[in-house]
Amino acid sequence: MAPAYKLTYFNVTALGEPTRFLFSYGGIDFEDVRITTEQWPQIKPNMPFGQVPLLEHGGKAAHQSMAIARYAAKQVKLVGKDDWEDLEIDAAVDTVNDLRQKLAVYHYENDEKIKQEKGEVVFKEQLPYYLERLNAQAEKNGGHLACNRLTWADMYLAAILPYLNFMAKKDILADAPALKKVCDQVYQLPNIKKWLEKRPKTEF
Amino acid sequence: MAPAYKLTYFNVTALGEPTRFLFSYGGIDFEDVRITTEQWPQIKPNMPFGQVPLLEHGGKAAHQSMAIARYAAKQVKLVGKDDWEDLEIDAAVDTVNDLRQKLAVYHYENDEKIKQEKGEVVFKEQLPYYLERLNAQAEKNGGHLACNRLTWADMYLAAILPYLNFMAKKDILADAPALKKVCDQVYQLPNIKKWLEKRPKTEF
Repeated sequence: MAPAYKLTYFNVTALGEPTRFLFSYGGIDFEDVRITTEQWPQIKPNMPFGQVPLLEHGGKAAHQSMAIARYAAKQVKLVGKDDWEDLEIDAAVDTVNDLRQKLAVYHYENDEKIKQEKGEVVFKEQLPYYLERLNAQAEKNGGHLACNRLTWADMYLAAILPYLNFMAKKDILADAPALKKVCDQVYQLPNIKKWLEKRPKTEF
Repeated sequence: MAPAYKLTYFNVTALGEPTRFLFSYGGIDFEDVRITTEQWPQIKPNMPFGQVPLLEHGGKAAHQSMAIARYAAKQVKLVGKDDWEDLEIDAAVDTVNDLRQKLAVYHYENDEKIKQEKGEVVFKEQLPYYLERLNAQAEKNGGHLACNRLTWADMYLAAILPYLNFMAKKDILADAPALKKVCDQVYQLPNIKKWLEKRPKTEF
Protein backbone atom coordinates (compact mmCIF):
# COMPACT_ATOMS: atom_id res chain seq x y z
CA MET A 1 0.00 0.00 0.00
CA ALA A 2 1.23 3.49 -0.81
CA PRO A 3 2.15 5.63 2.21
CA ALA A 4 -0.64 7.93 3.44
CA TYR A 5 1.67 10.94 3.22
CA LYS A 6 3.73 12.36 0.38
CA LEU A 7 6.31 15.06 1.11
CA THR A 8 7.80 16.89 -1.87
CA TYR A 9 10.96 18.94 -1.41
CA PHE A 10 14.43 19.40 -2.85
CA ASN A 11 17.18 16.80 -2.36
CA VAL A 12 18.53 18.58 0.74
CA THR A 13 17.68 18.64 4.45
CA ALA A 14 16.82 22.35 5.12
CA LEU A 15 13.08 23.12 5.38
CA GLY A 16 11.92 19.60 4.55
CA GLU A 17 13.94 17.80 7.20
CA PRO A 18 11.94 18.69 10.34
CA THR A 19 8.86 16.96 8.90
CA ARG A 20 10.98 14.01 7.71
CA PHE A 21 12.38 13.70 11.26
CA LEU A 22 8.92 13.91 12.83
CA PHE A 23 7.32 11.28 10.59
CA SER A 24 10.36 9.05 11.06
CA TYR A 25 10.23 9.50 14.83
CA GLY A 26 6.59 8.41 14.94
CA GLY A 27 7.11 5.51 12.55
CA ILE A 28 4.79 7.14 10.00
CA ASP A 29 5.63 6.00 6.50
CA PHE A 30 5.84 8.78 3.89
CA GLU A 31 6.76 9.08 0.24
CA ASP A 32 9.98 11.11 0.27
CA VAL A 33 9.87 12.86 -3.11
CA ARG A 34 13.02 14.85 -3.96
CA ILE A 35 12.94 17.31 -6.85
CA THR A 36 16.07 17.86 -8.90
CA THR A 37 17.23 21.32 -9.96
CA GLU A 38 16.36 20.33 -13.54
CA GLN A 39 12.76 19.40 -12.63
CA TRP A 40 12.05 22.47 -10.51
CA PRO A 41 11.15 25.00 -13.27
CA GLN A 42 8.41 22.64 -14.47
CA ILE A 43 7.13 21.89 -10.97
CA LYS A 44 7.27 25.38 -9.43
CA PRO A 45 4.21 26.82 -11.25
CA ASN A 46 2.07 23.98 -9.88
CA MET A 47 3.09 24.54 -6.27
CA PRO A 48 0.97 26.81 -4.04
CA PHE A 49 2.81 30.15 -3.98
CA GLY A 50 5.60 28.48 -6.00
CA GLN A 51 7.01 26.82 -2.91
CA VAL A 52 8.02 23.50 -1.42
CA PRO A 53 7.88 21.59 0.87
CA LEU A 54 4.44 20.34 -0.11
CA LEU A 55 2.58 17.79 1.99
CA GLU A 56 -0.08 15.65 0.32
CA HIS A 57 -2.54 13.49 2.24
CA GLY A 58 -6.00 12.11 1.50
CA GLY A 59 -6.32 14.02 -1.77
CA LYS A 60 -5.36 17.33 -0.18
CA ALA A 61 -2.16 19.36 -0.40
CA ALA A 62 -0.62 22.03 1.83
CA HIS A 63 2.53 24.13 1.76
CA GLN A 64 4.50 26.17 4.35
CA SER A 65 7.27 24.24 6.10
CA MET A 66 6.52 25.32 9.68
CA ALA A 67 2.80 24.62 9.35
CA ILE A 68 3.54 21.20 7.86
CA ALA A 69 6.01 20.37 10.64
CA ARG A 70 3.47 21.42 13.29
CA TYR A 71 0.90 19.13 11.66
CA ALA A 72 3.39 16.24 11.63
CA ALA A 73 4.24 16.94 15.30
CA LYS A 74 0.57 16.53 16.22
CA GLN A 75 0.42 13.16 14.43
CA VAL A 76 3.43 11.86 16.39
CA LYS A 77 2.37 13.46 19.71
CA LEU A 78 5.32 15.79 20.22
CA VAL A 79 3.12 18.79 20.99
CA GLY A 80 2.10 20.48 24.26
CA LYS A 81 -0.20 19.14 26.95
CA ASP A 82 -2.21 22.37 26.86
CA ASP A 83 -2.47 25.58 24.84
CA TRP A 84 0.19 27.40 26.87
CA GLU A 85 2.70 24.58 26.35
CA ASP A 86 1.96 24.75 22.62
CA LEU A 87 2.66 28.49 22.78
CA GLU A 88 6.03 27.85 24.42
CA ILE A 89 6.92 25.22 21.80
CA ASP A 90 5.74 27.42 18.90
CA ALA A 91 7.74 30.37 20.28
CA ALA A 92 10.90 28.22 20.49
CA VAL A 93 10.42 26.98 16.93
CA ASP A 94 9.79 30.51 15.64
CA THR A 95 12.95 31.70 17.40
CA VAL A 96 15.05 28.98 15.76
CA ASN A 97 13.45 30.03 12.50
CA ASP A 98 14.35 33.69 13.13
CA LEU A 99 17.94 32.54 13.53
CA ARG A 100 17.69 30.64 10.24
CA GLN A 101 16.39 33.72 8.46
CA LYS A 102 19.23 35.88 9.78
CA LEU A 103 21.74 33.36 8.49
CA ALA A 104 19.90 33.16 5.16
CA VAL A 105 20.04 36.94 4.69
CA TYR A 106 23.83 36.59 4.92
CA HIS A 107 24.28 33.32 3.03
CA TYR A 108 22.14 34.20 0.00
CA GLU A 109 23.63 37.69 -0.50
CA ASN A 110 25.30 37.82 -3.94
CA ASP A 111 27.25 41.07 -3.54
CA GLU A 112 30.54 40.10 -1.83
CA LYS A 113 31.04 43.47 -0.16
CA ILE A 114 27.50 43.58 1.26
CA LYS A 115 27.81 39.93 2.27
CA GLN A 116 30.89 40.76 4.32
CA GLU A 117 29.04 43.61 6.07
CA LYS A 118 26.10 41.35 6.77
CA GLY A 119 28.48 38.71 8.09
CA GLU A 120 29.79 41.17 10.66
CA VAL A 121 26.28 41.69 12.03
CA VAL A 122 25.26 38.03 11.88
CA PHE A 123 28.39 36.49 13.40
CA LYS A 124 29.35 39.19 15.89
CA GLU A 125 25.91 40.25 17.07
CA GLN A 126 22.89 38.18 16.06
CA LEU A 127 24.16 34.59 16.30
CA PRO A 128 25.86 35.06 19.72
CA TYR A 129 22.77 36.89 21.04
CA TYR A 130 20.35 34.16 19.95
CA LEU A 131 22.56 31.19 20.83
CA GLU A 132 23.35 32.46 24.33
CA ARG A 133 19.65 32.84 25.10
CA LEU A 134 18.58 29.59 23.43
CA ASN A 135 21.35 27.75 25.28
CA ALA A 136 20.17 29.19 28.62
CA GLN A 137 16.63 28.15 27.69
CA ALA A 138 17.81 24.57 27.08
CA GLU A 139 19.60 24.55 30.45
CA LYS A 140 16.45 25.78 32.19
CA ASN A 141 14.29 23.17 30.43
CA GLY A 142 16.34 20.14 31.44
CA GLY A 143 18.11 19.72 28.13
CA HIS A 144 15.14 20.62 25.94
CA LEU A 145 13.96 23.79 24.21
CA ALA A 146 10.57 23.80 25.91
CA CYS A 147 8.35 22.08 28.51
CA ASN A 148 11.20 20.14 30.18
CA ARG A 149 10.79 17.24 27.76
CA LEU A 150 11.21 16.20 24.14
CA THR A 151 8.89 18.22 21.89
CA TRP A 152 8.90 19.07 18.21
CA ALA A 153 10.96 22.18 19.04
CA ASP A 154 13.93 19.89 19.79
CA MET A 155 13.26 17.92 16.62
CA TYR A 156 13.04 21.14 14.61
CA LEU A 157 16.43 22.40 15.80
CA ALA A 158 18.15 19.04 15.40
CA ALA A 159 16.75 18.54 11.90
CA ILE A 160 17.62 22.01 10.63
CA LEU A 161 21.05 22.31 12.32
CA PRO A 162 23.08 20.92 9.37
CA TYR A 163 21.48 23.56 7.13
CA LEU A 164 22.30 26.33 9.63
CA ASN A 165 25.89 25.09 9.85
CA PHE A 166 26.09 24.89 6.06
CA MET A 167 25.02 28.53 5.73
CA ALA A 168 27.34 29.66 8.53
CA LYS A 169 30.22 27.50 7.21
CA LYS A 170 30.95 26.45 10.80
CA ASP A 171 29.56 24.55 13.79
CA ILE A 172 27.29 27.25 15.21
CA LEU A 173 26.77 25.27 18.44
CA ALA A 174 30.50 25.07 19.30
CA ASP A 175 29.93 27.40 22.27
CA ALA A 176 26.39 26.26 23.10
CA PRO A 177 26.78 22.92 24.91
CA ALA A 178 23.18 22.69 26.11
CA LEU A 179 21.88 23.13 22.56
CA LYS A 180 24.36 20.56 21.32
CA LYS A 181 22.94 18.16 23.89
CA VAL A 182 19.40 18.89 22.72
CA CYS A 183 20.40 17.87 19.20
CA ASP A 184 22.51 14.87 20.20
CA GLN A 185 19.61 13.47 22.22
CA VAL A 186 17.43 13.66 19.13
CA TYR A 187 20.07 11.99 16.92
CA GLN A 188 20.26 9.12 19.45
CA LEU A 189 16.53 8.32 19.30
CA PRO A 190 16.27 4.83 17.72
CA ASN A 191 13.90 5.87 14.90
CA ILE A 192 15.98 8.96 14.14
CA LYS A 193 19.18 6.89 14.06
CA LYS A 194 17.48 4.62 11.54
CA TRP A 195 16.40 7.64 9.46
CA LEU A 196 19.88 9.17 9.51
CA GLU A 197 21.31 5.91 8.16
CA LYS A 198 18.60 5.54 5.56
CA ARG A 199 18.24 9.08 4.20
CA PRO A 200 20.01 10.13 0.99
CA LYS A 201 23.43 11.68 1.59
CA THR A 202 23.29 15.31 0.52
CA GLU A 203 25.55 18.40 0.65
CA PHE A 204 23.44 19.86 3.48
CA MET B 1 -10.27 42.28 39.05
CA ALA B 2 -7.22 42.65 36.83
CA PRO B 3 -7.54 41.03 33.38
CA ALA B 4 -6.11 37.50 33.13
CA TYR B 5 -3.99 38.51 30.14
CA LYS B 6 -1.44 41.27 29.66
CA LEU B 7 -0.17 42.05 26.18
CA THR B 8 2.88 44.32 25.91
CA TYR B 9 3.73 45.90 22.56
CA PHE B 10 4.47 49.27 20.97
CA ASN B 11 1.76 51.89 20.46
CA VAL B 12 1.05 50.70 16.91
CA THR B 13 -1.06 47.95 15.32
CA ALA B 14 1.51 45.81 13.41
CA LEU B 15 2.50 42.54 15.13
CA GLY B 16 0.44 43.14 18.26
CA GLU B 17 -2.88 43.77 16.55
CA PRO B 18 -3.83 40.20 15.52
CA THR B 19 -3.84 39.14 19.18
CA ARG B 20 -5.72 42.31 20.19
CA PHE B 21 -8.32 41.52 17.51
CA LEU B 22 -8.63 37.90 18.65
CA PHE B 23 -9.07 38.68 22.35
CA SER B 24 -11.54 41.44 21.46
CA TYR B 25 -13.49 39.10 19.18
CA GLY B 26 -13.86 36.56 21.98
CA GLY B 27 -14.71 39.15 24.62
CA ILE B 28 -11.54 38.27 26.56
CA ASP B 29 -10.39 41.22 28.62
CA PHE B 30 -6.66 42.00 28.39
CA GLU B 31 -4.33 44.67 29.71
CA ASP B 32 -3.24 46.54 26.57
CA VAL B 33 0.22 47.82 27.55
CA ARG B 34 1.83 50.13 24.98
CA ILE B 35 5.52 50.96 25.28
CA THR B 36 6.75 54.36 24.19
CA THR B 37 9.93 54.82 22.15
CA GLU B 38 11.50 56.42 25.24
CA GLN B 39 10.72 53.42 27.46
CA TRP B 40 11.91 50.77 24.99
CA PRO B 41 15.69 50.85 25.70
CA GLN B 42 15.00 50.10 29.38
CA ILE B 43 12.44 47.40 28.62
CA LYS B 44 14.19 45.60 25.72
CA PRO B 45 16.87 43.82 27.83
CA ASN B 46 14.14 42.23 29.96
CA MET B 47 12.21 40.84 27.00
CA PRO B 48 12.90 37.29 25.80
CA PHE B 49 15.18 37.68 22.76
CA GLY B 50 14.73 41.46 23.11
CA GLN B 51 11.33 41.33 21.43
CA VAL B 52 7.71 42.28 21.81
CA PRO B 53 4.83 41.45 21.70
CA LEU B 54 4.95 39.71 25.05
CA LEU B 55 1.96 37.85 26.45
CA GLU B 56 1.71 37.35 30.21
CA HIS B 57 -0.79 35.02 31.84
CA GLY B 58 -0.91 33.15 35.16
CA GLY B 59 2.63 34.16 36.12
CA LYS B 60 4.08 33.03 32.78
CA ALA B 61 5.33 35.04 29.82
CA ALA B 62 5.80 34.20 26.14
CA HIS B 63 7.03 36.05 23.07
CA GLN B 64 6.73 35.54 19.27
CA SER B 65 3.76 37.30 17.68
CA MET B 66 2.50 34.41 15.54
CA ALA B 67 2.70 31.91 18.39
CA ILE B 68 0.84 34.32 20.68
CA ALA B 69 -1.86 34.94 18.07
CA ARG B 70 -2.31 31.18 17.56
CA TYR B 71 -2.70 30.77 21.33
CA ALA B 72 -5.29 33.57 21.42
CA ALA B 73 -7.11 31.99 18.47
CA LYS B 74 -7.47 28.74 20.43
CA GLN B 75 -8.97 30.63 23.39
CA VAL B 76 -11.62 32.25 21.16
CA LYS B 77 -12.25 29.10 19.08
CA LEU B 78 -11.19 30.41 15.68
CA VAL B 79 -9.01 27.40 14.93
CA GLY B 80 -9.57 24.29 12.79
CA LYS B 81 -11.93 21.39 13.45
CA ASP B 82 -9.08 18.94 12.94
CA ASP B 83 -5.31 18.90 12.44
CA TRP B 84 -5.53 19.30 8.66
CA GLU B 85 -7.76 22.36 8.97
CA ASP B 86 -5.23 23.82 11.41
CA LEU B 87 -2.53 23.16 8.83
CA GLU B 88 -4.53 25.06 6.19
CA ILE B 89 -5.08 27.97 8.56
CA ASP B 90 -1.43 28.03 9.69
CA ALA B 91 -0.27 27.94 6.05
CA ALA B 92 -2.52 30.90 5.18
CA VAL B 93 -1.22 32.89 8.16
CA ASP B 94 2.39 32.06 7.31
CA THR B 95 1.79 33.17 3.71
CA VAL B 96 0.37 36.52 4.85
CA ASN B 97 3.42 36.78 7.08
CA ASP B 98 5.75 36.05 4.13
CA LEU B 99 4.08 38.96 2.34
CA ARG B 100 4.68 41.16 5.40
CA GLN B 101 8.35 40.22 5.47
CA LYS B 102 8.80 41.03 1.79
CA LEU B 103 7.27 44.46 2.36
CA ALA B 104 9.45 44.95 5.47
CA VAL B 105 12.64 44.19 3.55
CA TYR B 106 11.69 47.11 1.27
CA HIS B 107 10.25 49.49 3.87
CA TYR B 108 13.10 49.25 6.40
CA GLU B 109 15.90 49.64 3.81
CA ASN B 110 17.87 52.82 4.62
CA ASP B 111 19.86 53.15 1.39
CA GLU B 112 17.58 55.02 -1.03
CA LYS B 113 19.10 53.46 -4.16
CA ILE B 114 18.83 49.91 -2.83
CA LYS B 115 15.32 50.67 -1.55
CA GLN B 116 14.27 51.66 -5.05
CA GLU B 117 15.68 48.42 -6.48
CA LYS B 118 13.91 46.40 -3.80
CA GLY B 119 10.70 48.32 -4.51
CA GLU B 120 10.83 47.17 -8.13
CA VAL B 121 10.91 43.53 -7.03
CA VAL B 122 8.30 43.91 -4.29
CA PHE B 123 5.72 45.95 -6.19
CA LYS B 124 6.14 44.51 -9.69
CA GLU B 125 6.74 40.86 -8.80
CA GLN B 126 6.20 39.70 -5.24
CA LEU B 127 3.07 41.62 -4.16
CA PRO B 128 1.10 40.89 -7.37
CA TYR B 129 2.15 37.22 -7.23
CA TYR B 130 1.04 36.77 -3.61
CA LEU B 131 -2.11 38.88 -3.83
CA GLU B 132 -3.38 37.17 -6.97
CA ARG B 133 -3.02 33.75 -5.35
CA LEU B 134 -4.36 34.81 -1.94
CA ASN B 135 -7.33 36.47 -3.66
CA ALA B 136 -8.08 33.27 -5.59
CA GLN B 137 -7.82 31.35 -2.32
CA ALA B 138 -10.39 33.67 -0.72
CA GLU B 139 -12.73 33.18 -3.69
CA LYS B 140 -12.39 29.42 -3.41
CA ASN B 141 -13.03 29.49 0.36
CA GLY B 142 -16.30 31.40 0.22
CA GLY B 143 -14.83 34.77 1.21
CA HIS B 144 -12.38 33.40 3.76
CA LEU B 145 -8.69 32.52 3.68
CA ALA B 146 -9.22 28.93 4.82
CA CYS B 147 -11.83 26.29 5.68
CA ASN B 148 -14.77 28.13 4.08
CA ARG B 149 -15.48 30.03 7.30
CA LEU B 150 -14.13 32.67 9.64
CA THR B 151 -10.85 31.53 11.20
CA TRP B 152 -7.93 33.34 12.76
CA ALA B 153 -6.32 33.55 9.32
CA ASP B 154 -8.99 36.12 8.35
CA MET B 155 -8.47 37.95 11.65
CA TYR B 156 -4.71 37.94 11.10
CA LEU B 157 -4.95 39.53 7.64
CA ALA B 158 -7.56 42.10 8.68
CA ALA B 159 -5.59 43.11 11.78
CA ILE B 160 -2.25 43.45 10.02
CA LEU B 161 -3.54 45.08 6.80
CA PRO B 162 -3.12 48.72 7.97
CA TYR B 163 0.56 47.93 8.74
CA LEU B 164 1.05 46.35 5.30
CA ASN B 165 -0.57 49.38 3.65
CA PHE B 166 1.58 51.71 5.75
CA MET B 167 4.76 49.97 4.58
CA ALA B 168 3.59 49.88 0.96
CA LYS B 169 2.30 53.49 1.11
CA LYS B 170 -0.83 52.36 -0.76
CA ASP B 171 -3.93 50.20 -0.52
CA ILE B 172 -2.39 46.84 -1.42
CA LEU B 173 -5.84 45.23 -1.79
CA ALA B 174 -7.05 47.69 -4.44
CA ASP B 175 -7.00 44.91 -7.06
CA ALA B 176 -7.87 42.05 -4.70
CA PRO B 177 -11.64 42.34 -4.10
CA ALA B 178 -12.04 38.93 -2.43
CA LEU B 179 -9.31 39.78 0.12
CA LYS B 180 -10.91 43.16 0.71
CA LYS B 181 -14.15 41.36 1.48
CA VAL B 182 -12.34 39.02 3.90
CA CYS B 183 -11.12 42.06 5.84
CA ASP B 184 -14.38 44.04 5.64
CA GLN B 185 -16.28 41.08 7.07
CA VAL B 186 -13.92 41.05 10.03
CA TYR B 187 -14.24 44.81 10.57
CA GLN B 188 -18.04 44.42 10.64
CA LEU B 189 -18.05 41.86 13.46
CA PRO B 190 -19.75 43.56 16.46
CA ASN B 191 -16.86 42.99 18.90
CA ILE B 192 -14.28 44.10 16.33
CA LYS B 193 -16.31 47.25 15.56
CA LYS B 194 -16.28 48.02 19.27
CA TRP B 195 -12.51 47.42 19.43
CA LEU B 196 -11.85 49.64 16.41
CA GLU B 197 -13.75 52.47 18.09
CA LYS B 198 -12.05 51.93 21.42
CA ARG B 199 -8.40 51.35 20.41
CA PRO B 200 -5.89 54.20 20.54
CA LYS B 201 -5.54 56.07 17.25
CA THR B 202 -2.04 55.48 15.91
CA GLU B 203 -0.08 56.24 12.73
CA PHE B 204 -0.35 52.58 11.63
